[in-house]
Amino acid sequence: MKKHNFSAGPSILPQEVLLKASEAVVDYNNSGLSLIEISHRSKDFVDIMENARALVLELLGLEGKGYKALFLQGGASTQFLMVALNLLEKRAGYLNSGSWAAKAIKEAKIFDDVYEVGSSKDANYNYIPKGYEIPEDYDYFHCTSNNTIFGTQMKSFPKTNIPMVCDMSSDIFSRTLDFSQFGLIYAGAQKNMGPAGTTLVVVKEDILGKVSRKIPSMMDYQVHIDKGSMFNTPPVFPIYTSMLTLEWLKGKGGIAAIEKENEKKASIMYSEIDLNPLFEGFAVKEDRSLMNATFNLTNDNLKDTFETMLKEAGISGVNGHRSVGGYRASMYNAMPIESVKVLVEVMSELESKA
Amino acid sequence: MKKHNFSAGPSILPQEVLLKASEAVVDYNNSGLSLIEISHRSKDFVDIMENARALVLELLGLEGKGYKALFLQGGASTQFLMVALNLLEKRAGYLNSGSWAAKAIKEAKIFDDVYEVGSSKDANYNYIPKGYEIPEDYDYFHCTSNNTIFGTQMKSFPKTNIPMVCDMSSDIFSRTLDFSQFGLIYAGAQKNMGPAGTTLVVVKEDILGKVSRKIPSMMDYQVHIDKGSMFNTPPVFPIYTSMLTLEWLKGKGGIAAIEKENEKKASIMYSEIDLNPLFEGFAVKEDRSLMNATFNLTNDNLKDTFETMLKEAGISGVNGHRSVGGYRASMYNAMPIESVKVLVEVMSELESKA
Ligand SMILES: Cc1ncc(COP(=O)(O)O)c(C=O)c1O
Ligand SMILES: Cc1ncc(COP(=O)(O)O)c(C=O)c1O
Ligand SMILES: [Mg+2]
Ligand SMILES: [Mg+2]
Ligand SMILES: [Mg+2]
Ligand SMILES: [Mg+2]
Repeated sequence: MKKHNFSAGPSILPQEVLLKASEAVVDYNNSGLSLIEISHRSKDFVDIMENARALVLELLGLEGKGYKALFLQGGASTQFLMVALNLLEKRAGYLNSGSWAAKAIKEAKIFDDVYEVGSSKDANYNYIPKGYEIPEDYDYFHCTSNNTIFGTQMKSFPKTNIPMVCDMSSDIFSRTLDFSQFGLIYAGAQKNMGPAGTTLVVVKEDILGKVSRKIPSMMDYQVHIDKGSMFNTPPVFPIYTSMLTLEWLKGKGGIAAIEKENEKKASIMYSEIDLNPLFEGFAVKEDRSLMNATFNLTNDNLKDTFETMLKEAGISGVNGHRSVGGYRASMYNAMPIESVKVLVEVMSELESKA
Repeated sequence: MKKHNFSAGPSILPQEVLLKASEAVVDYNNSGLSLIEISHRSKDFVDIMENARALVLELLGLEGKGYKALFLQGGASTQFLMVALNLLEKRAGYLNSGSWAAKAIKEAKIFDDVYEVGSSKDANYNYIPKGYEIPEDYDYFHCTSNNTIFGTQMKSFPKTNIPMVCDMSSDIFSRTLDFSQFGLIYAGAQKNMGPAGTTLVVVKEDILGKVSRKIPSMMDYQVHIDKGSMFNTPPVFPIYTSMLTLEWLKGKGGIAAIEKENEKKASIMYSEIDLNPLFEGFAVKEDRSLMNATFNLTNDNLKDTFETMLKEAGISGVNGHRSVGGYRASMYNAMPIESVKVLVEVMSELESKA
């Protein structure tokens, strides 16, 4: 049976990427060797790394603008700490728009003073805080573009003269933005870019070098930049698979093309949530995420019926996060519109049954 | 042509492991989904993680002895820093037996006082320092069991009452040892355990919790222990492939069985280096590594001939590290004795030609 994988991350990847990645594990490029058993200093892998780094800047429209792309380890959770280590000298402003933002705040507080410029914790993060001020004497401002757990997404970003740092783990490469408004962007690979095990960092080099603390080598963006993202052994397979996914995206027409598909998928999904009386959305409408749609049943008695129907339709990964409950349909770049239609079909079938 | 892969890391893995890993990238266990697109919180992946962690303790003979196994990210280079963050309160003793040891020392010095109890830097690390003292009031003692670059290996470990921390990146699971003499063992996966992208940490839980600094979550061993090595999204594919390699090793009879093969391979290799007048070993004999044999041509004029012959025999990855020069044959667990024989054959052919 065809599977429809709505997992929030690690999550769906393009089928052609999976096939190429699988092949490389046995024999890379007819070399007679597996991709995962060759030196990371070999020309084969250095080419992969450089291609992946270049594709990132090309797709984001950041070529020649002073940015460097790095493929690191440790997940976005390690970036919570690296951002503060590299940029926090006195005080930073954070937007508390979800649990991941709150964790970023918690880790940064270990190093210095952190101020919440805005928060939506009061409403279990079902909206994006707005109308806040960002003091111009702060070291940087940190926000989360898409709140994976709550299904909210920043539709616009504040204007500020201090570096803007953004956790784009769950919506990078999914929509057109002026990416040059950010000083630093980071994202765990395991949503729109590749498998778990590598973390993308895109940093404007001139925001670095301004803190007085001594930074351990593995935590120092400048060290990784100077070594071409190969200070130590990089996670070869996750980077190769990310490169394949970036090539796939480029082949589809880049971010502008995928954005149109993502808008279509989300609109089908949210229409059903709104029009079907058995469902209601969790996030406020104006802040709804194109990537993660969060919703609940209006009648809890239908839970078992609905979940059986989902299973029978081959739908997996739609269970909501424990801090929100209900359901969450993650519709990342690689999700075909057909899968969204199958889910919506099941929802409307439930209505006709009920 | 059959390839003989002597790469120092990432390095050779068992063929059956590569095949199974490749299959899982397309379809895991006939689930219809790829291993790399399912949630790390799914039963499928939690089972993999728990199996891998259990296999580590079983193979090392550390079950029921207060140890925990963790699969982290960041490579052994991140352990240089995590060890110090978690264990260094006042002063630690380090054995400087190679470039990796020197890097471990450099990173630890950022946090506190570090003392080199012994060093072989004077002879470009061609031997293991011996006869040193370890003060009993230090927080811990750090050593490197196998010096990948220089081809030296510690044949015995000092007796001490303070926790002994060991970087076993390049010889873990290759020889029997009383692993309970160590308080903490770490190893990048990409030699004897799996692909690049995960780092094994085996820690005796009771050595933790003794430092006063606030440790960032991702750097805190206790946090990872408490979360079953899933504090954040783990590197799914590297961990799965490591689990397969550990199963393969268990199937072969465990460390004791593989140790015999490793001794045989090394003895064939070193015999040729010693008996063939065209070659000489780099490391002093008593400290020679069973994993990485370092050697030079006695006549530099034969360089091109030798390297052409290597290529023609399908041999790759024997170039020495730039800080030593010459050649390095890495003979990790997965390397078949046949490949060593092919290399030795080429060396002896060179002699008959010259
Ligand atoms: C927005 C966001 N930030 C951070 C994280 C944490 O990422 P990681 O597990 O790679 O540390 C996630 C994970 O889902 C996320 O969605
Ligand atoms: C003994 C030893 N320690 C540490 C490292 C560094 O490992 P990583 O590249 O995973 O940081 C290596 C890499 O070859 C090594 O051989
Ligand atoms: Mg969130
Ligand atoms: Mg409705
Ligand atoms: Mg070394
Ligand atoms: Mg000789």
